[in-house]
Amino acid sequence: LAQVIDPSLEARSFRQAVKARVGTLGRPLTVVGFLTAEAGPSVTYANYTKVGCDDVGIRFDLRHVQRLELERAIDAANADPDVHGVFIYYPIFGGEHDRYVKDLVDPRKDVEGLNTYWVRKLYHNERFDDAARTRKAILPCTPLAIVKLLEAAGAVPQEARPKLGGRTVAVFNRSEVVGRPLASMLANDGARVVSFDVDGPMLFTPAGIEETRVTRAEALRQADIVVTGVPSRDFALVRADELKPGVVAVNFSTFKNFADDVEAKARVFVPRVGPMTVAMALRNALRLYESYHAGA
Amino acid sequence: LAQVIDPSLEARSFRQAVKARVGTLGRPLTVVGFLTAEAGPSVTYANYTKVGCDDVGIRFDLRHVQRLELERAIDAANADPDVHGVFIYYPIFGGEHDRYVKDLVDPRKDVEGLNTYWVRKLYHNERFDDAARTRKAILPCTPLAIVKLLEAAGAVPQEARPKLGGRTVAVFNRSEVVGRPLASMLANDGARVVSFDVDGPMLFTPAGIEETRVTRAEALRQADIVVTGVPSRDFALVRADELKPGVVAVNFSTFKNFADDVEAKARVFVPRVGPMTVAMALRNALRLYESYHAGA
Repeated sequence: LAQVIDPSLEARSFRQAVKARVGTLGRPLTVVGFLTAEAGPSVTYANYTKVGCDDVGIRFDLRHVQRLELERAIDAANADPDVHGVFIYYPIFGGEHDRYVKDLVDPRKDVEGLNTYWVRKLYHNERFDDAARTRKAILPCTPLAIVKLLEAAGAVPQEARPKLGGRTVAVFNRSEVVGRPLASMLANDGARVVSFDVDGPMLFTPAGIEETRVTRAEALRQADIVVTGVPSRDFALVRADELKPGVVAVNFSTFKNFADDVEAKARVFVPRVGPMTVAMALRNALRLYESYHAGA
Repeated sequence: LAQVIDPSLEARSFRQAVKARVGTLGRPLTVVGFLTAEAGPSVTYANYTKVGCDDVGIRFDLRHVQRLELERAIDAANADPDVHGVFIYYPIFGGEHDRYVKDLVDPRKDVEGLNTYWVRKLYHNERFDDAARTRKAILPCTPLAIVKLLEAAGAVPQEARPKLGGRTVAVFNRSEVVGRPLASMLANDGARVVSFDVDGPMLFTPAGIEETRVTRAEALRQADIVVTGVPSRDFALVRADELKPGVVAVNFSTFKNFADDVEAKARVFVPRVGPMTVAMALRNALRLYESYHAGA
């Protein structure tokens, strides 16, 4: 039977490390959250952020705004020296309009790492924001959370160089928020990653991205790690008989993407990611503070 | 019976003006087009660009690239001082991944005006790129083409200030590429614009954007100008009995969005926009050259 990983427990050590550092800062590290919905998953997510911030000593200022007032509110937070991080709860308008909103956040306050400024660094495997390599690049919270959970699962040999050299991964989701950055991060660390979405498969390797015709069955048969994030009940669940023995299986969809029998075959099963995502946001907030606001 | 506007004829005077200026430049104005598809509408669009460039004396260099080679190819064109404009034929990956591609184009070579740099200027009604107001901001080609066709239709009184003061417009489409920038441009010129898409209506006015509950029927009954761009056969065609007499009707969808009886009731009918879009791309290329490359 698989070891089941509880992301809340794994997040704890990251939260403790953030808390220890936040306690040494000369003034309150302040994150502003912008919420335009009155109910639903984004309200829940905002509440989790609040709990996480309270826990580590970050001041979290949740602002309820009308979506059409959001741009002005972001501009004001960008300009406010007492605000060190900005967190926005999506979806707001949906589609490309939300992409526009992501790029309104000053990269130096972008707790979620979703501004194109950071996205481009990730896709180019630029791990620092300065030539002296003192300011680490900001990574998007959910893909980063998945990588940290894979490390907790023992799926990322820390002594190997590159860390994921020789490993094969299948990722079901190629969104710009999770699936594509995740595939890219894993490939940057040496893995061979087959990324699936409705438009078909794509292969990410340390050398770059390639077209591929690999099938779901082939990719699953080869995968040391399988990550699923298909936001639909219609997805044909990944079954145990499709997997290699000893596989590490991670689901970040709010829907169940693995069949029940997978827990019996996998070595490690990570049923959800959310609490680690929040921990990574707290960590990013601290990193932004230390890189861009500590001396101000 | 409505006057029917042929966008090819209207585009001619813009092309002639571009041609006259291009002829005076000391070296060839060069635009590179990137095409990843082998068939379909983007190939047709590339051919139209080629014909338009040939006509006005712009050197058009169409490069067929694999989509996974595109980022590197754009970087090379950005860095090449002999390339003055870049044109990309979408869709490539689809969705937010294509938004990422749009932002790879150097704004100073962005013939289509789709980089977030220009999009933000448009939404903020910043009409110049410099304090001295010598470098005009680049506007996206299709919304700009629609505005020019409305001017040709006599729907934009050139003597009024603001030009569209007191006018009401209904736009069916709120994509980030056409419908939203168009609504914003018309509102910047003084109009009251009701924008419809699957997520419902939104009101654009010179004072800003507001939520609204106006229905399709109300908006159409009040509209002096109706613009449709619904890329679907399922859209309930706009019928003559929904419209004010004397309305100006513009369709930019590849599908027919107006019923046949609209031509009898409208004052002016613009059945398609494409050729004017190409003319605006040529005009943007010239503008970019004069703003950023003439002295180089």
